[in-house]
Amino acid sequence: MAPMKLSEIAAMLGGELLGSSDPEITGAAGLADAGPGDLTFVTSKILLRQVKTSGASAVIIPQGLECALPAIRLENPYEGFATFLQRFQVPLDRVFPPGIHETAVVDPTADVSLATSIGPYCVIGADCIVGKGTRLASHVTMGPNTEVGVDCQLHARVSIREECRVGNRVILHAGVCLGTDGFGFLPGPKGLIKIPQVGTVIIEDDVEIGSGSCIDRATTGQTVVGRGTKLDNLVQVGHNVKVGNHCVISAHSGIGGSTVIGNRVSIGGFVGIADHITIGDGAKIAGKSGMFKDVPAGATLFGVPAIDVKESFRLFSALRKLPELIRRVRKLENIQSGKGE
Amino acid sequence: MAPMKLSEIAAMLGGELLGSSDPEITGAAGLADAGPGDLTFVTSKILLRQVKTSGASAVIIPQGLECALPAIRLENPYEGFATFLQRFQVPLDRVFPPGIHETAVVDPTADVSLATSIGPYCVIGADCIVGKGTRLASHVTMGPNTEVGVDCQLHARVSIREECRVGNRVILHAGVCLGTDGFGFLPGPKGLIKIPQVGTVIIEDDVEIGSGSCIDRATTGQTVVGRGTKLDNLVQVGHNVKVGNHCVISAHSGIGGSTVIGNRVSIGGFVGIADHITIGDGAKIAGKSGMFKDVPAGATLFGVPAIDVKESFRLFSALRKLPELIRRVRKLENIQSGKGE
Amino acid sequence: MAPMKLSEIAAMLGGELLGSSDPEITGAAGLADAGPGDLTFVTSKILLRQVKTSGASAVIIPQGLECALPAIRLENPYEGFATFLQRFQVPLDRVFPPGIHETAVVDPTADVSLATSIGPYCVIGADCIVGKGTRLASHVTMGPNTEVGVDCQLHARVSIREECRVGNRVILHAGVCLGTDGFGFLPGPKGLIKIPQVGTVIIEDDVEIGSGSCIDRATTGQTVVGRGTKLDNLVQVGHNVKVGNHCVISAHSGIGGSTVIGNRVSIGGFVGIADHITIGDGAKIAGKSGMFKDVPAGATLFGVPAIDVKESFRLFSALRKLPELIRRVRKLENIQSGKGE
Repeated sequence: MAPMKLSEIAAMLGGELLGSSDPEITGAAGLADAGPGDLTFVTSKILLRQVKTSGASAVIIPQGLECALPAIRLENPYEGFATFLQRFQVPLDRVFPPGIHETAVVDPTADVSLATSIGPYCVIGADCIVGKGTRLASHVTMGPNTEVGVDCQLHARVSIREECRVGNRVILHAGVCLGTDGFGFLPGPKGLIKIPQVGTVIIEDDVEIGSGSCIDRATTGQTVVGRGTKLDNLVQVGHNVKVGNHCVISAHSGIGGSTVIGNRVSIGGFVGIADHITIGDGAKIAGKSGMFKDVPAGATLFGVPAIDVKESFRLFSALRKLPELIRRVRKLENIQSGKGE
Repeated sequence: MAPMKLSEIAAMLGGELLGSSDPEITGAAGLADAGPGDLTFVTSKILLRQVKTSGASAVIIPQGLECALPAIRLENPYEGFATFLQRFQVPLDRVFPPGIHETAVVDPTADVSLATSIGPYCVIGADCIVGKGTRLASHVTMGPNTEVGVDCQLHARVSIREECRVGNRVILHAGVCLGTDGFGFLPGPKGLIKIPQVGTVIIEDDVEIGSGSCIDRATTGQTVVGRGTKLDNLVQVGHNVKVGNHCVISAHSGIGGSTVIGNRVSIGGFVGIADHITIGDGAKIAGKSGMFKDVPAGATLFGVPAIDVKESFRLFSALRKLPELIRRVRKLENIQSGKGE
Repeated sequence: MAPMKLSEIAAMLGGELLGSSDPEITGAAGLADAGPGDLTFVTSKILLRQVKTSGASAVIIPQGLECALPAIRLENPYEGFATFLQRFQVPLDRVFPPGIHETAVVDPTADVSLATSIGPYCVIGADCIVGKGTRLASHVTMGPNTEVGVDCQLHARVSIREECRVGNRVILHAGVCLGTDGFGFLPGPKGLIKIPQVGTVIIEDDVEIGSGSCIDRATTGQTVVGRGTKLDNLVQVGHNVKVGNHCVISAHSGIGGSTVIGNRVSIGGFVGIADHITIGDGAKIAGKSGMFKDVPAGATLFGVPAIDVKESFRLFSALRKLPELIRRVRKLENIQSGKGE
């Protein structure tokens, strides 16, 4: 980034410049890593103490705090910092060079005319549509009759199987698999019989899906990831699942077939969710939990099987007293039976 | 699908047509999603109640039930429904267009002459063999001296490392990795020393492996996935593991090195299985379990560490009473010590 | 491998030949799988008993043991066996044929002149550097301004996003993703706002990373995997994580954002580690654990949440007595209240 005066950054973010000096800012970093030239941020009084030992040149602080360093005061320091970070992004035209690369294999019936980039070795099947401004990195595969909306970013070797639909402004990270057959079999006399998976996948607008994550196609109908939902890396979404809007699902979590997740649900990492259950709106599920039955809206759960997080902590605390409790009961029994303590 | 009379479908499935009308069927869906023109199915009396509120035009029902809607009676409704679903599959020739794509890099010593499709940007190494009728989508890599049998489907960017073998009628979904080095190291004076992984992987007939799953090559000898076994997405199989026949392993599960899994074992999602143990034939392991020691044939287990599923439920139920039990013991102690209740 | 006399192998490994015969060795296998012509190894007296029923032609044994079979005595039998295994490796020139494949798309500003192999359909972006002796298999993507050191092996469809750095002698297995955006969002009035992820990834020397594993780029600064560390398949490393040197992390584990892992830490499979915590040097974390807070150096932990492994075993053992304990307390209460036993 070209150097900016702190006063220019304050103006850009709509914040108040504090202090009499106006240093040049050349970088951005979290509090622990910041050095000379860096702008950092704090969100609380406790963190403010660390600013003194940080090498940062300036800091974004919230209302109600004061600071010895040159500072910008903003209602939401992290949001302002995030806005400032955009200055450091490698330009999209460098990550996804514009144009249709000469090695891309595009079926004559596909329409990629409005796309901004189709990278090397992409394979775009029959009747596909790629929306305006959308960028595909290298080795992306779109099966026949798939559609990706406008202003999307599909990173290296994303693959989308036949008939699936991706909305607008969607980001699919390297190695995402959309439309894999759902995992459905019936016992037969000679072994398992495959249930045809003839449904599709719908990824709605503003979704982001992390590397290696897999969204299976529905048996019939649709597997849906709702508007604005964000999936981390290595997440599995089974056939016929409906994930609501604005959910956050952390890495290594997975959702069994036909389960319905509400809106604004927050799911930690390594959470396993059984098939055919319902998770209510706004539920929060702590990492490493296992969900085997329906969850009411707004619940906060933890454990395998998951229960209310406060009860879960109480039970764990009680469990740590159990070996001693066993000794105490033996002592009571001994007194009772006349053997003494 | 072209519309079919319900009577034609009944004849095709070998079932009995019930009711006096013979509607035209144009689609298929599960009970919750079915609408006009759709054929659906029920497997129990309880589900039959939902048929009334479903928009389905007809339903497949088992012996012993009656139904107000036009219906087909079959011994196994879901199996009949699965057979009917085949009508809705996108033709294989559209998903895997026949022929050897001009961009495929096929070593002159490889034999792909009987394959049905070798997709764009596939890379087939020295001395490989691809069987009759087998289809490879785009970006599939077969390392030197690998072999894939007849009538297989390898989806986009499957990769198979050198020397591995895949049987007949195997389905490998997008992004499967076969033959990665097993994870074996020895402590050395300057750090960890890699143990050469010089074995291979054998995938037997009729196996299906989900997206992103990884089957590591053996240190010496073979890692084996047995006939008819089905692996979901993101499953890890360590070096020298032997998985038996007709097993089902759900997403996000993993098997440590040298472990032996019997036949017809059923493993839920997120199950971690330690190395060097044995899981007996027909064992059932519930999702989220952790297996650290041998499991006898036929056992049904749950938990970390996994124990009999019924004991596991009893323990969890007892645990929820533990905080109250602690209070009860204190009360008894107080009475005992003369402090009263 | 060409046959070798056992005496030649003893000389090569620097061990003592035991027994009067000197058989020809043509293979190598673990004790359970060894047959005629094979060299195997044992590490303890208990395993030595199995040598009799093994079909092996010879065995490597440690100091202090005797053996009826022709044998080589070595201080560290497994290490000697691992050295011998190198003879059976498929030559690197066969797995990664030397040269820059004519289909590789190499940006004119990239420097691959010292690389040994750049495989078919690789895509090397602007300003990249590939070090001397390094080998890339097929479909590898290096984004702009990425660098890979000397003598590395990148297997099929590894992808490295812009600005990331890989050290020397690093092995990246098929499907590894380096530099995916970290998973960071802020709540906004219309949904989640993406926090730009403008940092990078540093993979230090002698690291090995398994198939499908994902190392996210930092928000600002660097995500680091330290020298000599080995990651198994399907491991997730979040943004701004620092993994120390010589760690071992097994399959399906994951590390949340900004967490710091010390040196020589050993992490089993399926371990979930929360964000913003510190794991001390030399800690050992058993498989399936969940880490939610800092771990001191040298600790050995298990469970969700993880506690000292010995306490964890004691608690599990106590828990199995809990249903009976509840009955015993009821009995005491009945006696106390005069209802008798």
